Amino acid sequence: MTDASTATETKMTKSMEDIVALCKRRGFIFPASEIYGGINGFWDFGPLGIELKNNLRDAWWHDMVRCPPAGPDGEMLSIVGLDSSIIQNPKVWEASGHVGGFNDPMQTCRQCKKLFRADHVEEMVLESEWYQELSQIWPPKKIPSLDGLRHWARKNGKKSAPGLALVRDTNNVLQELEKIIKSTDDPGDVWASSNVLFGADCQIWPQDGVCPNCGGDLTEQRDFNLMFETHAGAVRDDANKVYLRPETAQGIFLNFKNVLDTSRVKVPFGIAQIGKAFRNEVTPRNYIFRSREFEQMEMEFFCHESEAKKLYEFWVQTRLDWWKSLGISSENLQRRDHDADELSHYSTACADIEYRYPFTAPGFGELEGIAHRGNYDLTQHQEHSGAKLAYFDQEKNERYLPHVIEPAAGLSRGVLVLLCEAYTPDPDRPSKVYMKFHPRMAPIKAAIFPLVAKEGMPEVAQKLYQELRTKYAVQLDIKQNIGKRYARMDEAGTPYCFTIDGQTLEDDTVTVRERDTLSQERINISQVATYLAEQIG
Amino acid sequence: MTDASTATETKMTKSMEDIVALCKRRGFIFPASEIYGGINGFWDFGPLGIELKNNLRDAWWHDMVRCPPAGPDGEMLSIVGLDSSIIQNPKVWEASGHVGGFNDPMQTCRQCKKLFRADHVEEMVLESEWYQELSQIWPPKKIPSLDGLRHWARKNGKKSAPGLALVRDTNNVLQELEKIIKSTDDPGDVWASSNVLFGADCQIWPQDGVCPNCGGDLTEQRDFNLMFETHAGAVRDDANKVYLRPETAQGIFLNFKNVLDTSRVKVPFGIAQIGKAFRNEVTPRNYIFRSREFEQMEMEFFCHESEAKKLYEFWVQTRLDWWKSLGISSENLQRRDHDADELSHYSTACADIEYRYPFTAPGFGELEGIAHRGNYDLTQHQEHSGAKLAYFDQEKNERYLPHVIEPAAGLSRGVLVLLCEAYTPDPDRPSKVYMKFHPRMAPIKAAIFPLVAKEGMPEVAQKLYQELRTKYAVQLDIKQNIGKRYARMDEAGTPYCFTIDGQTLEDDTVTVRERDTLSQERINISQVATYLAEQIG
Repeated sequence: MTDASTATETKMTKSMEDIVALCKRRGFIFPASEIYGGINGFWDFGPLGIELKNNLRDAWWHDMVRCPPAGPDGEMLSIVGLDSSIIQNPKVWEASGHVGGFNDPMQTCRQCKKLFRADHVEEMVLESEWYQELSQIWPPKKIPSLDGLRHWARKNGKKSAPGLALVRDTNNVLQELEKIIKSTDDPGDVWASSNVLFGADCQIWPQDGVCPNCGGDLTEQRDFNLMFETHAGAVRDDANKVYLRPETAQGIFLNFKNVLDTSRVKVPFGIAQIGKAFRNEVTPRNYIFRSREFEQMEMEFFCHESEAKKLYEFWVQTRLDWWKSLGISSENLQRRDHDADELSHYSTACADIEYRYPFTAPGFGELEGIAHRGNYDLTQHQEHSGAKLAYFDQEKNERYLPHVIEPAAGLSRGVLVLLCEAYTPDPDRPSKVYMKFHPRMAPIKAAIFPLVAKEGMPEVAQKLYQELRTKYAVQLDIKQNIGKRYARMDEAGTPYCFTIDGQTLEDDTVTVRERDTLSQERINISQVATYLAEQIG
Repeated sequence: MTDASTATETKMTKSMEDIVALCKRRGFIFPASEIYGGINGFWDFGPLGIELKNNLRDAWWHDMVRCPPAGPDGEMLSIVGLDSSIIQNPKVWEASGHVGGFNDPMQTCRQCKKLFRADHVEEMVLESEWYQELSQIWPPKKIPSLDGLRHWARKNGKKSAPGLALVRDTNNVLQELEKIIKSTDDPGDVWASSNVLFGADCQIWPQDGVCPNCGGDLTEQRDFNLMFETHAGAVRDDANKVYLRPETAQGIFLNFKNVLDTSRVKVPFGIAQIGKAFRNEVTPRNYIFRSREFEQMEMEFFCHESEAKKLYEFWVQTRLDWWKSLGISSENLQRRDHDADELSHYSTACADIEYRYPFTAPGFGELEGIAHRGNYDLTQHQEHSGAKLAYFDQEKNERYLPHVIEPAAGLSRGVLVLLCEAYTPDPDRPSKVYMKFHPRMAPIKAAIFPLVAKEGMPEVAQKLYQELRTKYAVQLDIKQNIGKRYARMDEAGTPYCFTIDGQTLEDDTVTVRERDTLSQERINISQVATYLAEQIG
C-alpha cells in the first residue's frame, strides 16, 4: 500500500549490484564454477533459485498445457507438451536459417585481443572506467588541459586504458592535439577532433572503434555464428558436426507431424516446450539477462491462416496478462510492437513484452516475444526434409500448412524479472530489504518457528512442519532469535511465518506474520493448512 | 490379479520392438529429427512421454528435497535443491578425472570405417544378420559345407557382410579352410580354425576383431573420451575449449561451499539436482537406455566419515524401496553390490539398483547407482581450485572434508523402466495391450467421455473436465465409439475413465471404469474429485 511517491523512491534505490549481492548471499544464484574463477556467461541456481525457477516453470506449464486459457471466441484451446533434445540433426539448422544467418557482428581489439559484440561497444565504452576518468578531464565540448591529459596518460591511464593511443604514444598525440587547439577558438571544433586520442582508425568520439576494455582500436565488424558447435560420434569431422540448439522452437516444428499423428489434436492447437538453449554470446551481459546457457518456455500455436491475426492479438494480450498475474506491476511491463523494418521477411507481426530492468531503466528490455511467423518454419522443414507436413481439415476438405503464433518467453529471464520486481528496500526492517514475491512464486511458502528451542515448542513446530510440507514448500527453523529468523525469511521472500510460542501450548493458537504488511494475528494451529490454501491456492 | 504362471507368460511376451512401437504410436517417444532421417543416440519425448517424465522428475524431487525420508536413526534429514549449468569451467573436469580418464575403448572397422565400443562388439556380432546366417551354415563344432559357404559368400554374404574375408576373397579363404578340413578328422579342430573366415588378425570365433556391421576386421582398441567438446567464446582454440557435463554430480561439489554458506544446513545434509548430461557414446544402444543426451537425478549426501557406512546402507535400501513404491515389481529389481575390482580406487562401496529390461532378460541392467565416494571429490576440487572446502562442526569443534553417499539415478532410464514395467499384453482387450502405470506416474490420471456427442452429454463432460483439470492431468475425449476411446486410454495407461451417459442426465451418476480390473461402477458426479483424490493421493 505505498503511494506513488514512495513507489518511485523505492524503484530508484533498486540497483543490480544490490540484487546480485542478495541473490548470492541467500542462495538464489551463484556464478558457475566460482571456485575456479567462474566462467563467463554461465550461472548456477542455488537452493532458493531452483525453487523459484521451478515455480515459474510449473506455473507456465499449468497455465499453458494443463489449463490453457479459453480462446478469443471463448472456445476451449488445446495445447500439448513436448520435450525435444538439445542436439538435433544439423540439417534442422540449415532449414531454419540458423546455420546461414544466426550471426552477431563482432569486433576484436587489436591491442588486448578481446572480442566484443559490435552493437554493445558504445554502451560498454560509456560504462568503462577509463572513459569515465577521461570525461572528467575533457568534458564534452570543452577545451581540455594538455597537462591534465598528460598526467592521466602517465598515471591512471596506464592501468585503465593501456591500449589507448593517448597512453601508448602520449607525446605525439598531445602534439597533434596542441596543433588543433592552436588552430581554432571554437571548443566544439576541438571536441570534433577528439578522435586523435584514439588513433587513426577512429572517426567520432565516443564511438564503435574503441575497445571498452583497454582503449585500443577495434577491427572491422565480422559475422560470428552464435551456435555452439560440437561433434556427435568419435570422429571430429564436418560430417559429425552438430549444434546445441539456440532455441527450443525448432524441436516443435520437427515434431508437428508426429504430434498430429499420435495425439488426436485438431488445428487450431498448440505444442509447448520448456528447455535449455545455448547461444555463444560474444559479450554475455547483465547477469542472467544474456547468458550463454539459458532456459526458454516456447509454444507454437498452429492455426488456419484466416485466424492467425486474431490469435496473434489474443496471445499478446494473454501473455501480458499472465506476467501481471504473477505479481509483475503494470508500470514495469510494456508491449512493444516491432516496426516493419525489425520484422523477419516472413513475419507478419511481432510484439515484445518488455520489463523495466534496473539496467535498462527508465527504458525497457525484452522478456517475451510473441511472433506471427506465418507458415515459414513448416514450409522450410517440408522443403528441406521432403516430409509432407500439411494438415488435412476433414470438415472443410482443405489441406494446408498451418500458420503459427509463437509466444516465446525466457524462463531464466523470467526468474530475473521476478527477482528484480520482488526486491523491495525497507530501511525499517532488520534485513533492510525484503523480496515481495507473489505467493505462487515464493520459493518457500511458509516458515515455522518455535519461539524458543525448548519447552516442547520444537516438537509442536516439527509436527506442523511435517503436516504442511506434503502440500507446500515450507521450512522449519528452530534456532536463533526470532528477529533474525524473520529477517532471513524476508530476504528469501517467504510470505508467511508461523510461530509456536508459550500460548500455543495453552490454547493451540500460533501467530502468523505476513511478510508485506508485517501484521501478526493468532490463528488455531489446526487452521494453518486452510489459511495457506486460502492465501496461496 | 494375475497368478504366477500368467505373470511369467506376460513377461515373456514383452519385446522391445513392441514397446518401442507403442511409444511411437501413442506419442511417448519419437526419434529425434525423424523427418531428417534421425540422429543416432538422441530421442524426443512426445506429449505423453513428457508428462510421464515430469511425473517421475517431480516424484523424485518431492520425495528427496521437499519431503526427504527419515534417516537411519529416525532423525529428520535435510536435503536442498540445486541447478548448476551444463557448461562449467573446464578445470572442473580435470579435477574430477573426466578429462584424463573418462574413456571408452573403441575400435574402427578397416573396411566400412564404422566405430564400435570394444566391449559391445561381441554382443553386436552375435545379434548381426550376417553372423546369424553364417551360424546356420557352420554350426558350432561341426565341419561346414564348403559349397554352402561359397554359395552364401556369393549371394547373401555380399549384402550382409561385404567386409568379411570369406566374401572379399572367397576362393583363397575356402582353399585354406579345405586344407584344414583335410588335415584333421576332429570337427573341434576345424572349428578352432574358423578364424580363417575373418582374415589374419582374428584369433577366436566369435570375437572382438570382427565388425558387426560388415564382417571386416577391426583396428586395435584405442581410448576415446566420452565428453562432448565445444568452445565458449568466439575463438575456437584450446583456451576456449569447454565440455558438456557428462554427469550432474560435479556441479553439486562445486557448490558445496556456496550452499553451506547460504542455507544454514549442517552436516549431515544432501544437495540434489536433476538435469541433462551428455556422453558421446561410440555405440548408443537399446533405445533410451544408452543415449547421448539424457537426464539424471543425483544427490550427494554429505556426512562425517564415521556415519558414512550406515548412511550408505540406508540409501541403498531407501532408493530400492522408492522404485518399488512407483509400481516396479520386486522380481524385476535387484541390488547388485560391486565387486572390489569394479570399485574406483577412492570408493569404499558401490551398489547398483538393476532392472530386468526386455533386452537384458533374464539378466538385469543398471537403473541407479549408490556410491560411497569417501571425500575424494571435495579433496580433488580443494586441491585443484585452491578453495577451502572443509566443514567446521561447532559442537564437536572439528574441521573436516565430509564424506559423501551418492544415489545417482537415470531419469531417462527411469522412464524406460516405467514403460517396460507398465507394458502389459492382454489379448482380450481391443487394444491387445495396456500400460499399467502406477497412478502417481500415469501421464493422464483420468479421461472423461460423454457416451455420445449429443443430448447435453458433452456439456456435462466439459464441466467435469474443467473442474478436474485444475488438480489433475485429465483428458476430455468426445468423439468416436466408446470402445475405441477406452482402447486409446489403455494404451496411454490412464487408470480411470469416467463416462457421462443417459443415466447421468437423470440421476447425476457417472460410470468409472478401472483400467487394470476393467470393473465399472457408478458414482455420483460430485464425488469424482474425491474418488480420484483417494485413488491417486
